[in-house]
Order: sequence, then structure tokens, then C-alpha cells
Amino acid sequence: MSAMECLEDDLKLICGRSNPDLGKEIAALLGTSLCQIRLSTFNDSEIHVQIEESLRGKDVFIVQPTCQPVNENLMELLIIIDACRRASARQITAILPYYGYARQDHKSTGREPISAKLVADLISTAGAHRVVAVDLHAAPIQGFFNIPMDHLTAIPILAGYFKNKGLKDMVIVSPDAGRTKVAEKYSDILQVPMAMMTKRRRGVGGQELQFFDIVGNVEGKTAILIDDVISNGSITKEAEMLSRSGAREVYLSITHPVLVGRAMELLQSSSIRELVVTNTIPVSAEKRLCSQVKVLSIAPLLANAIRRIHQNRSVSALFLEANLVFPV
Amino acid sequence: MSAMECLEDDLKLICGRSNPDLGKEIAALLGTSLCQIRLSTFNDSEIHVQIEESLRGKDVFIVQPTCQPVNENLMELLIIIDACRRASARQITAILPYYGYARQDHKSTGREPISAKLVADLISTAGAHRVVAVDLHAAPIQGFFNIPMDHLTAIPILAGYFKNKGLKDMVIVSPDAGRTKVAEKYSDILQVPMAMMTKRRRGVGGQELQFFDIVGNVEGKTAILIDDVISNGSITKEAEMLSRSGAREVYLSITHPVLVGRAMELLQSSSIRELVVTNTIPVSAEKRLCSQVKVLSIAPLLANAIRRIHQNRSVSALFLEANLVFPV
Amino acid sequence: MSAMECLEDDLKLICGRSNPDLGKEIAALLGTSLCQIRLSTFNDSEIHVQIEESLRGKDVFIVQPTCQPVNENLMELLIIIDACRRASARQITAILPYYGYARQDHKSTGREPISAKLVADLISTAGAHRVVAVDLHAAPIQGFFNIPMDHLTAIPILAGYFKNKGLKDMVIVSPDAGRTKVAEKYSDILQVPMAMMTKRRRGVGGQELQFFDIVGNVEGKTAILIDDVISNGSITKEAEMLSRSGAREVYLSITHPVLVGRAMELLQSSSIRELVVTNTIPVSAEKRLCSQVKVLSIAPLLANAIRRIHQNRSVSALFLEANLVFPV
Amino acid sequence: MSAMECLEDDLKLICGRSNPDLGKEIAALLGTSLCQIRLSTFNDSEIHVQIEESLRGKDVFIVQPTCQPVNENLMELLIIIDACRRASARQITAILPYYGYARQDHKSTGREPISAKLVADLISTAGAHRVVAVDLHAAPIQGFFNIPMDHLTAIPILAGYFKNKGLKDMVIVSPDAGRTKVAEKYSDILQVPMAMMTKRRRGVGGQELQFFDIVGNVEGKTAILIDDVISNGSITKEAEMLSRSGAREVYLSITHPVLVGRAMELLQSSSIRELVVTNTIPVSAEKRLCSQVKVLSIAPLLANAIRRIHQNRSVSALFLEANLVFPV
Amino acid sequence: MSAMECLEDDLKLICGRSNPDLGKEIAALLGTSLCQIRLSTFNDSEIHVQIEESLRGKDVFIVQPTCQPVNENLMELLIIIDACRRASARQITAILPYYGYARQDHKSTGREPISAKLVADLISTAGAHRVVAVDLHAAPIQGFFNIPMDHLTAIPILAGYFKNKGLKDMVIVSPDAGRTKVAEKYSDILQVPMAMMTKRRRGVGGQELQFFDIVGNVEGKTAILIDDVISNGSITKEAEMLSRSGAREVYLSITHPVLVGRAMELLQSSSIRELVVTNTIPVSAEKRLCSQVKVLSIAPLLANAIRRIHQNRSVSALFLEANLVFPV
Amino acid sequence: MSAMECLEDDLKLICGRSNPDLGKEIAALLGTSLCQIRLSTFNDSEIHVQIEESLRGKDVFIVQPTCQPVNENLMELLIIIDACRRASARQITAILPYYGYARQDHKSTGREPISAKLVADLISTAGAHRVVAVDLHAAPIQGFFNIPMDHLTAIPILAGYFKNKGLKDMVIVSPDAGRTKVAEKYSDILQVPMAMMTKRRRGVGGQELQFFDIVGNVEGKTAILIDDVISNGSITKEAEMLSRSGAREVYLSITHPVLVGRAMELLQSSSIRELVVTNTIPVSAEKRLCSQVKVLSIAPLLANAIRRIHQNRSVSALFLEANLVFPV
Repeated sequence: MSAMECLEDDLKLICGRSNPDLGKEIAALLGTSLCQIRLSTFNDSEIHVQIEESLRGKDVFIVQPTCQPVNENLMELLIIIDACRRASARQITAILPYYGYARQDHKSTGREPISAKLVADLISTAGAHRVVAVDLHAAPIQGFFNIPMDHLTAIPILAGYFKNKGLKDMVIVSPDAGRTKVAEKYSDILQVPMAMMTKRRRGVGGQELQFFDIVGNVEGKTAILIDDVISNGSITKEAEMLSRSGAREVYLSITHPVLVGRAMELLQSSSIRELVVTNTIPVSAEKRLCSQVKVLSIAPLLANAIRRIHQNRSVSALFLEANLVFPV
Repeated sequence: MSAMECLEDDLKLICGRSNPDLGKEIAALLGTSLCQIRLSTFNDSEIHVQIEESLRGKDVFIVQPTCQPVNENLMELLIIIDACRRASARQITAILPYYGYARQDHKSTGREPISAKLVADLISTAGAHRVVAVDLHAAPIQGFFNIPMDHLTAIPILAGYFKNKGLKDMVIVSPDAGRTKVAEKYSDILQVPMAMMTKRRRGVGGQELQFFDIVGNVEGKTAILIDDVISNGSITKEAEMLSRSGAREVYLSITHPVLVGRAMELLQSSSIRELVVTNTIPVSAEKRLCSQVKVLSIAPLLANAIRRIHQNRSVSALFLEANLVFPV
Repeated sequence: MSAMECLEDDLKLICGRSNPDLGKEIAALLGTSLCQIRLSTFNDSEIHVQIEESLRGKDVFIVQPTCQPVNENLMELLIIIDACRRASARQITAILPYYGYARQDHKSTGREPISAKLVADLISTAGAHRVVAVDLHAAPIQGFFNIPMDHLTAIPILAGYFKNKGLKDMVIVSPDAGRTKVAEKYSDILQVPMAMMTKRRRGVGGQELQFFDIVGNVEGKTAILIDDVISNGSITKEAEMLSRSGAREVYLSITHPVLVGRAMELLQSSSIRELVVTNTIPVSAEKRLCSQVKVLSIAPLLANAIRRIHQNRSVSALFLEANLVFPV
Repeated sequence: MSAMECLEDDLKLICGRSNPDLGKEIAALLGTSLCQIRLSTFNDSEIHVQIEESLRGKDVFIVQPTCQPVNENLMELLIIIDACRRASARQITAILPYYGYARQDHKSTGREPISAKLVADLISTAGAHRVVAVDLHAAPIQGFFNIPMDHLTAIPILAGYFKNKGLKDMVIVSPDAGRTKVAEKYSDILQVPMAMMTKRRRGVGGQELQFFDIVGNVEGKTAILIDDVISNGSITKEAEMLSRSGAREVYLSITHPVLVGRAMELLQSSSIRELVVTNTIPVSAEKRLCSQVKVLSIAPLLANAIRRIHQNRSVSALFLEANLVFPV
Repeated sequence: MSAMECLEDDLKLICGRSNPDLGKEIAALLGTSLCQIRLSTFNDSEIHVQIEESLRGKDVFIVQPTCQPVNENLMELLIIIDACRRASARQITAILPYYGYARQDHKSTGREPISAKLVADLISTAGAHRVVAVDLHAAPIQGFFNIPMDHLTAIPILAGYFKNKGLKDMVIVSPDAGRTKVAEKYSDILQVPMAMMTKRRRGVGGQELQFFDIVGNVEGKTAILIDDVISNGSITKEAEMLSRSGAREVYLSITHPVLVGRAMELLQSSSIRELVVTNTIPVSAEKRLCSQVKVLSIAPLLANAIRRIHQNRSVSALFLEANLVFPV
Repeated sequence: MSAMECLEDDLKLICGRSNPDLGKEIAALLGTSLCQIRLSTFNDSEIHVQIEESLRGKDVFIVQPTCQPVNENLMELLIIIDACRRASARQITAILPYYGYARQDHKSTGREPISAKLVADLISTAGAHRVVAVDLHAAPIQGFFNIPMDHLTAIPILAGYFKNKGLKDMVIVSPDAGRTKVAEKYSDILQVPMAMMTKRRRGVGGQELQFFDIVGNVEGKTAILIDDVISNGSITKEAEMLSRSGAREVYLSITHPVLVGRAMELLQSSSIRELVVTNTIPVSAEKRLCSQVKVLSIAPLLANAIRRIHQNRSVSALFLEANLVFPV
């Protein structure tokens, strides 16, 4: 394909240290190699960056999910962007398959930061010209940027996995009121019903006590409990409640596998059939040993987006294609 | 109260033309008078602003919901801000009880604007130092601003109305997946269960056909169908479905009464018991004649916020008080 | 011409809803078609924009005079720009054949806005990279922008019309002290003398009373009364005074036909021979029925400017050519 | 007056080197002393600034007309502003009684700068919070700033001088089409008629030849030829033409006495009765020896403006007072 | 002291987690208490900030050296600033007793970042109004900010320690060419001579081999080897070379005790008599057990600066006082 | 060379009035001609710029060292940049072979400006996209810009001159503590030792008295006294002291020949063997007559940098080549 050839001289793909395997996979899919860069952390914890190929006039893409350790990975991203800008790159696209701090997207009470906006401002200040992200915690985070922002979604990939599995009597379950729109997207693609769990608080100020409520019908069904992020595994509690409420089987379908703290332990001691995630965040070989864990690759989606951005072709077409994969 | 006296010399309350009654009510509650300002629209549709009192070093508050006609009201707000800035006001607070374009808060497909962000940028560019809004369509809109933004809520006022009414067996119903978090707030304050309606789409691309689904139990219950905005009254369809599904009575509880198109007609021909709204947007005398319509005033909340901002006292305390009104 | 061929793939011409005929005429002159775009106004008066062709890397031109309803048309322009920016257009040129609010270009008294500057800031904030305008009310408005601004003039077109008509004994008349520089341009092109009308105010503060004065000689002459804008037709008063002062015939030559209020009525009941305008603002079929109204097209000038900007050729050369059309 | 007392501790008046006498006069009128500052120019032509009093939290006013040498004076102003900003001044007001480069306020042809806008941006970038200027070449220059800008006028002072002189049969003459609005202001204050001179150009491109035209009646009258700036004295040509055209006497009334090149020589060899100017720009003792030169002080106007700005009182009231000085 | 009383209501002192003891010491010196704030790090490594006292209209000072872990501490600082800004603090002063990344203050080769500038931009973007730092690696870092920046120095404190010790025959030694200006400051205060060490590189590109050179005389002298930062202790090599070159005793005098890696080990196995540092960075109890380590407190200097900034008194006076402590 | 051909149509080389010979030399080396531009200074000292070739879409380089008269040259640079920006240049690179005000790169005491940062902000504000400079007074000045900045050095050229001369027993001498890093670069290239001079101040505040100290060994050696700038020639005092201290011969090697005041006189009456400089600043024919003065051309370095920037090739490679010229 002749359009591919022109990728070589002009496009530079830089990969930070937060997800090197993803970077390599994308490079392979694009038929290019990763830009030579020296990334080191000094003894005193400062990051040092030295890019070893000329970037003058190049179209630079930086792959760096800001997963844990989020502050390290974010600063590394910002410093790489600064180096690219000062090296006269023509265009700098920051690709954050996982966008750390996305859940701090509004003030829920007084005197809180809006860290997701702060992060957007930091990225813009450092000099990025464009941002690509996947399944942001809230869609309006797009508006935190004035530079173009392509918001991709892994939901068709995840939903496709369940479709191909041929599961019967599925119900998509949102673990709380904030994820119902995500659940609805799965529900649309798979053409199955949905349910929602709510947490009710009691007492003055609503701080005292909590209990769950399942809104909708899960009895005898295969529950696909969805979320954008699995962090410390507290979602296993909701999964257990679904089982207790009569769900035949419970699957978790979650884009970003943060998986910290006791997450793996909770998962393994639960009755959850499978945890299906993508590789926006690296999943260690150890975690992959767990038979419940299934990792789908986001690399083809990102490689496709990079190619289209670089060739000035529509990225929104990507979504359409993705949708066309799962017609009813 | 001595703190009130100092309001007089330093605070200037300006009211645009989009909701003059609300401005007067706030002024009365603050014990002040509205700043003299000449607002006119020339024959050629250009707005002209002339402020008739000195604003040098003053703490200026501009009350202007950007309700319909939204572009007129927004431009009037921007021009007033520009005049205040050039008149050397010390601090300019734009109060948008209703924030037009809030629903365009993200790109739902390619090549759309994010008009809610554009509006935030326009307000910041014009020179506002702070923004106050009520029940934004999405909380992350707060993050569209880098200037301080106080996000107030009318939900305690609306929920309090139903509490005082002594209704039995209430269920809070979200009309779609996007409003479940709002429903949850009502549910928390009133300590009653919630339900959600979903629209399922069929066919390739999901465009062909729609049908409703009620997630949760409404049978025999008093359904409080909530929303942030009632625009052209299409929510009456959801209300009718609730009735058909066995809800004993249906109330609508909605912060912003946009009420355009056939909204009043649809309301009046429906079985909806009451439409409870606030006066963030003016409700005409004619509409108020309809016995189903109940308007609660947002003015005390806004007057309180203005006083606290002007006196450098905590505004978040307002929410706490609001919550304390409805202990279980 | 080979330079024309390359227009097709890279240039995108978008036309808002304020002057669709002008957009079509420009597209025809450029041998291209208008970019597919869906522009709608919701029931609640919000504008929605959806661009239906990919703009990635394109050179986008948006034709949108901000004539009445000025706030609608301006907001539509800003929202289109926002959509183009977020769609990764390479370059966005806003073409305002008529620049609304241009007359509010300075503070004439305390506590006024400078709305013409506000508009410039709004356009820059929305994300335009360049602006093209025609016969601005004041040349320094160019300096309200830091992005490149091409200020075109229709005066050679209008003056050429009178030249071709073979009128004798012309005198160019400025209706007030503010338009004398415009009059001088006509005078230079046509090589005929000029006159000026002044309004004198009496009394303390100069507010009480007005009377006209004609500075210069108009007796027995064909008076070409010029202006940049004809709004509500009050200029017919000056025209009548010229007649009373001995002018043989009076023509109006005005770039922008705002023509609101009683303008057509006043024109038709006057002794004005012709009102010559351009189509920077749409002139309705009904108005065109009036035999006094003569509309000259600005489209060739704008098409030429777009072509030159797109091909990185000098635009200032346009003026030179224009001047060369009318050598003495 | 108690309001004066509070001037002392909080207000700091800094005077650059472009018009030290004006600074001293203003200080005396305000009953304060000039802030200690060391201003020097090194051998290599670099300016060095060292402010010798603490400015933390102070309300700083910097008096610096950017008259010739304009680049020296402008850079000195910018460097003083930078020093004030870094010294944590609370508010910095740049007072430019004369605003250099004001005549470069638009592009008159392709590939010109708009230096008046550049200067505005430089002043804003350096860190000024507010600007005060007198009789700008074009009122829209106000809009070149987004910081508050108070545009004062010396016309009432100049016109008052002629009024007090008791001259008969005055006519205000604008030397070209660009100054007619200024002439009109004189005409309004003095309630006398006006005339205008025009320069007509011949030939292709209008470059070849020039001749003057007087629009309006000057015969037998006392002509007050007005302008904003007298630079190299070429206006004496217009004055001579007025004499030749029958004006009984010719006075020049001009705010800013740039007076460079052969200006004094041309003045002295002309029949001009008086050149009336202000001291926005220093007029050397040598020039003041010329009996035709009459200098009126702008210091009371500026002192008044400073006091009002510092005390947060309306500055626009100043204009009103100024107008009230000359009722009919 | 009455000036102290007013500190209470208006000033808020916030302390991040990087040096809590320093914060407490400053609070004690100011006679105030630290602002209540909840700082936590989630399992997934995201920082969360919740300020528990109202900051509206307050003068906020945030003490947070960005020492190791630098990225954690910097992000915590930025998030606190964001929270303060959105909480309507009147003024936010970021106090960085140690400024991480300061040594990356220029590009030493192609395609490097200038991380010290990036950090300055991030702090400004987050919303700080002023910065205070101590002994920056390079003075021009002040210019990386456009907000006011107070650059304090601990050198008088450190030099005073040696003066009070009554050491004889001191020579100040700069460990490399980059620290000679710092050495000169010690030399000025103590009125003793200085020496410099240089590293010479051999071979093509100078990369192959290094050897030291001592420029100046150290034989038989008490060498005070100075630096701004002691990081991994490599300076002990220079100290050893001084001993080998005949220095009687070697002291290290260094503002910022980073002390990572094998630093303590190298120190303890060296012949260095004392390592004198300040507490800009916390020195653990364990390190303090080492008898060579002497920690001087920077808290009085910072408390004094905060008091002066808050009271709008000159901070530069601080330096003068500091210098006056050590007259000859 | 085919890469050269493409220079013609796209690259525009503009030369201001501060160093026209350098501009011509660079143009000749690039095989191009200087862009036609009219630069004039009006009688009233205002600069006027008119560019006479179209710059639309061009890659513009402006050569303008801001040497004395620094304010004239800097303003001329800013005005040219403004004209280029408004003329739609694609990219504007400001080349400042000498960067005026570079020595004011930090506050050395309270209430000083940081003029070097102000200059950087002015250049960025005017619209430059990139800056090229040579041997800045301090490397961190690079960080004063956020636009890309290429910092070139003439040290290899100067050092090469001495190497080729075959001088024996060289010692590189820094005239003060601030230039030791520059001395070290010479020392690295020439592989010879270095020495440093210090000025010691006595008395309270260190203001009273000064005396020199030579740190290191110069006896019997050929001293190369280096500096970045020779301004009024005070460095001849340091040279004389080197002679008195036993240096066999003293050469001065200095990048920027400011040479004002009594500099030439002091040089000629000194025992300095040669003053070796570059032509970043014009050296008059008269000064060149002095046999001690040797001027090396910087033009090849700048031409090479321009060619590489224009062709998007690495500029840092330039330094490598430069270093390779002088292997040991």
C-alpha cells in the first residue's frame, strides 16, 4: 500500500516507559520502528530525556498511558513533549490509552481540585498539538482541551468478545449511576437489556451507612458487569451481590486494568467467571497467569488512528467501522 | 446584620434582559438595588450596553441565564462583561442560573463542536473572573473553566417540595442513562428507591427503531420523573409510559423550565400530576396559569451565594445547609 | 489552469446560513462545491453544527457575514469554527463580508463596551487562523486581531459602477465627519471633488439640538453620497438636504445593505436616484424589486481572495488590480 | 481633604526620562513626591532600571510619553513595568500622554506592520494592568488593549484657550480627511463652523501628483487649523494655503508637540499667528523662546485622572467636567 | 506586635507532604497553625486533595519543596494550587525551598528538554501568583517565571556557621566551573580566598576520560567545598582530592541535602570533617545520627519572607539584613 | 546540490539595519538574495517597515543582532516580525547573532527587571516562531522562550583560530566567576589548563573596595582571556593584571565585539597582543584598521543553521561537526 511508504520518513513514534509492549506492538502494526530515545531516572528521582533522532519537521506520536505510577508517567510524558517541542517537531500527538486522574473530573465538594482538567492544561502547556485517549471516565473531558482530541473507545472490542463467545441471556449491568451510559453502549451493540446497581446512603449528610440496590432484572441471566477502570477490585463486591441475586454467571468487562492493591486476590477468590480487559495499561505476566484474566489488544485501534491522523484521513470513520463489526 | 451594611458601597448587581424578575428578587433579598444600565437592541439587531453607575473597583455580579433566545442572551452577557472590564470593575462574577448549550458538552460523533466549552471560553475571554451556575447538564463543565466556578444545585429545593408534600411510596425515575446520577441525588435526599428508563436502538448503526425499557420497579408507586431541563416536552412520552407501566401518579421535577415548542400543550394533555420547576428561566404568566405548573424560586439560593462570595465566606457551606434541611 | 486543479482536494468552502447565495456564487466562481454541513436551530434556540466531510489537514474557508440577526450569525460562525478546529482543520479562515458590531469600535463615553474588539477576540478564541473582511467601519479594526487579517474593499467596484455610467459633474459627499476618508477614496478613484456634511450640536453637553451643515460645494452637481452601511435609512435625510441645497441628482453608494426598519420605505419616498450596494449582506428579492436598488456582486473579489490565500499568492495584489481598473 | 491623605502610603508615582518636568508637575499637584528610581543607559545603549523604594502591594503609576526617541522611551517604559511587576506591585498603570507609533494603526497596503497594536501588545505583555492616554491618533486604539484604557482628551483645554482669547469668526479646519472628527469636537465645544482640506492624487495608482482642495468656507475668517500631532512642520503648507485662500489669521491647535526636523524653522518663517500645544511632550526652553509657541499644561488633567483611578472614582466624569467648563 | 495579629484571619499556610516538619516550624515561627488539608494517595497512585478550611479571599502560602520523589511532590503541589485557585484564594504563593529539576535549566545538547522551565510553566499554569525559592541552581531560573519570584539564599546562614566556628585559613572551593559564582558569594561574606576544581575531558568529543585540576591554592588550608545540592555524594571525590592536594581539613557547605544513593556511605567513609546543610529537604533522623552531618534551619528565613510578603513589606530587605549579620 | 534549489522559492531572508554586511554574507553563502524591504526612520524617530515581496506561506528568516543602539534594533526586529506575521508568513525565525540585554538575566537585587526575559517575551509576542542566537550570556536564556531556540556557539571558531596559530603554553583565563563555564569549553577544545580571576569586595555590604585575585597559574604562559562580550573595554584591566602577574602574552578571545566608549583606546594603549572577535556585531572599517583586532566570520555557521532549519535537518549536528574540527 503506497500510503504506508510515506509513513517512514515523516512519522516518528515515541514510546515512554509506562507501556513499552504496547508501543512495540503499535510500531509493528505500522511497519515502523520506535524512535530512539534515552529515558532515565536519576538517583534523586528526576527524569531525564534525550531523544536520539532528529525530529525537525516530523509528525511525532508519543504513546504513554498515565497509569500507575501516574505522577511519574505523567511527568515523563510532559518532559518528552517539552523535548519534542524544543526539537522543532512539526506536530506532537500525545496518545494516552489510559488517562490518569480522569475520575477527578469535577468538584464533588468545596475546595477540591479538578485534576483531570489540570492534567489537560499541563499537557497543552507542555506543547502537545493533539491528544488521543481511550474510554475516558467522562466524555466532557474532551472539552478540557482546546487542541483537537480524538476520543476512541474499546467497547466494540470488548463487546465483540462476548458476542463471539455466544453467551445466552446476557444482561449488561452498570455498577453505579455513573456508568449507565457506558452500559447503554454495550447494550446497543449487543442488543441485550441492562440493569443498574445503586448505593443508597442513610442518615444526616448521607454519610452513615450504605446498602446496594439492583435496579432491573438479573435473575437467571449472564451478567456482564461493566466499568471503565478496575482499580483495587472493590467491584468484586457488586459481582458477588449479582450472584447472590440470582445471576447465573458474572463476567467483568472493563477497558483499563489498573489492578492495584488486593485486586487480583479479590478477583481470584470471587465467583467471577472472567475479567476481560484491554492492554491500555500493562498487565504483568504474573497477572496473565490467572485463568480468569483475558486481555484484548488495543494496539490495532491505536495504530489505525495514528495512521489516519498522520495521513489526514478521518478518524471518526474508525468508530463507524467498529460499529459495523457488530450488526444485528 | 452588620455584614449586610458593607454590601451597599462595594457590590454592584447587574441584571441583563433574560430574566429581569429573578434579578429584582435577588436584589430585594440582598437589600440592594439593581445597578442602572441601559440595554438596547438596535434596529439592525446589534445590542448596545451603557452602564450608568461607576464600577471602578467594584465587586460586580451579572445575573443572566442564557436561556432562549440563547445567542442573544449570551452575547448580551459577553458585551456586559466587556463593558464592566473596561470600566475597571475589581471583580466580575457571571451568574448563569441556566447555562445554554450545556448539553453540547462533548463530541458524540466526528466534526461536532463542543459548544459548552466554547461558551466557557467566550465568557473567560470577555473578562469574567468567576462563574456561578445551577444544575449543569454535566458536572465536568466546571472544568471547562479555569476561573473559579461555583456549581449550585436546586435539587434540595425541588426534593424538599416533594418531601413537604408528604407523598407516599415515591420512586425517583431517571428518563435515560444520562440522568441517573441526578436521580441518585434525589434518592439520597428523600431516601427512596430509584428506577431508570432506557431507549434501545435496533439495526445496523442502531439508528432504525427505538423502544423504551423501564429498569426497576414503578408499579403502584408515585413516580417522580426527574431531569435537568424540560425543553420541547418530549419527556411527557416517558411519563405516559410510566403511567401505562402501573405508576399511580407521575410528577415531573426539573430545574430548568425551557418549555418551548409544544411543551405546554403536551403537558396539559398528559396525565402528569405536576411539573415542578424553578425560575432559573422566566416562566411566563400564561404558563403559570396552567394548574400543573409549580414554580419554586431559586433567588434565595443565588442571593445567599452572592452574599457569601462578596463577603469571602464559604459557598460550599451552602450545600451543607441545603442538605441539613432534609435529614432522615 | 493547473493551479485551479489543486484547489479541489485541499480546500473546503463552508457557508453558514447568513448569506447562502453569496456562498454558492463564490463556490461556482472557484469551480468547487460547498462543503456538506448540517446547520440547525433547535426549538430552544440553540444552534447545532455537524460537518459531514472530513476536514483533517484541510484549508477551510467559512463564509459568514455577521449581519442581522447578528448574534445568531456570529454564534453560528463561532460554533462552526470550533467544530472545524476540533476536526483538525489545517487552517481556518473566517470570511466576514460584513462585520457586525464594527461601529462599536471605541468607547465614546465611560462604561461602554468595545464590542468590535470583543467580536475579534471571540473569533480568535474560537480558533480562526485568519480573517477576511470588506470595508470595515474603521481600518484600525484590523489591529483588533493578531492573526492575519485581509481587509478588502468594494469601493473600486462601486466607484467603477458610477464611472461606467458616465455621470457628469460628480461630487462625492461624506454624510458626516467619520466617513471623509472613505469619500476621499472614491474621490481619488473617480478624480472628482468631495464635500462633507456635519451635524452641529448646541447647548450644555451638546445634547439639545442638531442641525446640518454642508461643507463644500454641491450646487448643480451629481452628488454621490457614500457610506459603509445603510441601516435604518436615516441617511435619506442627508440626501434630501443635498437636494434642497441644489444637488441636481443624489445617488447613494454604500457597501453594506443592512436595510432594516423603515429603510426601504424612506428610500422609496425620497428623491434618491439610485442606491448602489453590494451583496455582502443578502438583499431580498422583494427589496430588489425596488427600481432604485442596484446590487453589485462582491463574490468575484472574495473568490479571488480565497484562491490567492489558498495558493499562497499575494492578496494585496488584488487591491492594485482593483485600482488599475480605474486609471485616469 | 481626607481622601488625599490616603494617597501617600499606597500610591507610587514613577516618572521615566522622557518628560521629567511633567512628572514633577503631576507629583506637585497630587501633593506627593516621585518614587526614587535609578534610570541609566549603559555605554552599550542598554537601559538599566533599579527602583529604590518597595512597591509590594502598591498602586503604581508610570508617566512616560513615548515621544522621540520613541524606541528608547518605549523600551524604558517596558523595562520599568517589568521591574514593577517582578517587585509585586499591586496595580501598574502606564500613563502615555503621547503614544508613539499611534499613526501606524492599520495596514494601508500589504506587508505593513500595525505598530500601534504591537506597542499595545508589548505594554500588556510587560505587565501593565491599565493604560491612560491622551488624544490618540485614532479612537479604536483603545480596543488594541484588553486591559482597561482611559482615553483622555486635551481638546477642551485647547479649545478653552481660544474661547478665552475672544477670537471672532472662527472656523475649525481639519488638515485632511482623517482629522475631521477631531475638528468636529472643537466645533462642538466652540460652536463654530468647520472646513476640511483634502489632498487629491492624480494618475495611475494616484501616486504622481498632489494638489490641495479646501472644502468649506475660510475666507475672512480666523482659521483654527487643528491636528493631533505636529511633527516635522509640514502642516505649515496647509496653513499657508489657508492664508492664500483668504483666511484672516491662522492658528494651529495641536495636542502633541513632536516638533522635529525643520518644524520650528518652518513655523517661524510662516504667517501662523500661534501654535498652541500641550506639554504631553517636553517643549524645550529654546522652542518656548519662539513667540508663536504657546504651551498649555496637561498635568492637571493627568493628576486628576490618577487621583480618581487611585480612589476608584469615575474617570469618565472628568470628561463631563471638562465639557462643563465651556458651556454655550 | 500588632502587625502579627492580622496574620491570623487572612493568611493561610498550607503544607504538602514533602517536608512537614519544615511547615510546622514555619507555622510556629509565624504564631499560626497549618491549614487543615487532607492529602492522600490512592492505591492506584493518584493524589487526592481536600482542603478543609475556606480559602475565599485568603492569602495562601504553600510550602512544598519538590525534592525526591520529585514527580510526586511536584504533582501534589500543582494539585494543591489547582484546588486553591478553584476555591477562590485571593493570592497563592508557592514556596519551593528546593526546586526539583533546577539543574535541567538549558539544553546541553540537541533534543533535550528544559525541564526547569517546564516546571515553571506548570506552576504558573496551575494558578500560582508568586513563587519563593532558595538557592536555585542558576539565577536566570527566576526569569522562567513572569509571576513575581523571590529568590532567597541560605548562603549567609551557612557562611555564618563557619564564621562562628572560628576556623582559620579558610579557602572556599568550587567543585566545578558552574559553582564559582556561589563560591564567590561565600568568599565575599567570609572575606577569604577561593579556588576552583575543573574536570578536563580528553579525546574526540571529549567523552573518553576525565581528570581533575585544582585551580588556586588549597595547601595547608581549611577547605570549604561548596555546592547547591548534594545528591548521590559524588562530591566526596572532589573532597578527597582536596585532602590529597594538601588541604588540612575539608568541610562541605551545601544548601540542599538530597542525599540519595550511596551518599551517606560515601560521606561516612570519607575524611570530610562536616557536611553542613539546611533543612530545605527533610534530613531523616537516621542521617542526623551521623556525626558529620550538621543541619541548619531555613525556617526563620522562610517565615520572615512569608510575613513580609503577607504584609506587603520589602523582601529584598531580607537579604540586606542577612548581609548585615556578617560585616567585616 | 539539489537540496539547494528548493531554497529559492520558499525561503525568504530578511536583513534589518543592524548588521547589513552579515546579512549579505549569509545570503551569498546560501546562494540567495535578500528579500526586498524598505526600512526607514521617520523624523520623529519612528521606524517604518514595508516588505516588498509577498511572504504568504514563506519560511522567513530575519537577521538582526540587537547590538547598539539596542532599543532601535530590537524595535526594528519586533516591527519586522509583526509585518511578517500579518503578511501570513508560514514560519518566522528571528536570528539574533547578538542578543542585547542578555546580561540582565536575573535580579541581582530587589526591584530590578529581568530584561533578557522581557526581550524574549517581546519577541514571542510579536509573533516569532523560532529564535537562533549565538553565545548567550547565560545558557538558561534558552528557557526564556517556549518557541524552539537554537543556541549556537562561536567558541569552536575562536578556539580554532588559536589552535591554528600554534601558540605554546596556553592558559585559558576567565575574567570573573561568571565566565568559568565558557573558559572550560575553550579548555576542553584546546586541551589546555584554565585560570580564573575574582574580584573581592570588602566592607559592610561589600560595596566599599575591590581588588583582583588570580586563581590558578599564569606565569610564563600565553594567556587567552576569554569573555562573551567586550563592551567598554574594562577587561583591559584584567589583561594588564595578567601581564603584571607574569603572563608572557595576553590574547582576548571574545564572541561579541560591542566595543563602545573608550574600548578601542584602552585596547590600543594596552599590551594585549590580539583581540579576536566575530562579526555578530559590525566592526567598523576604522576599528578593523587597528592591528590588534582580528575578526572571524560567523556567517558560515549562521548560513548552515538557516539551511538546516529550512530543510528540516538537525541543527544540533552543527555542534558535533564543530567539535570534530578540533580533535586532540
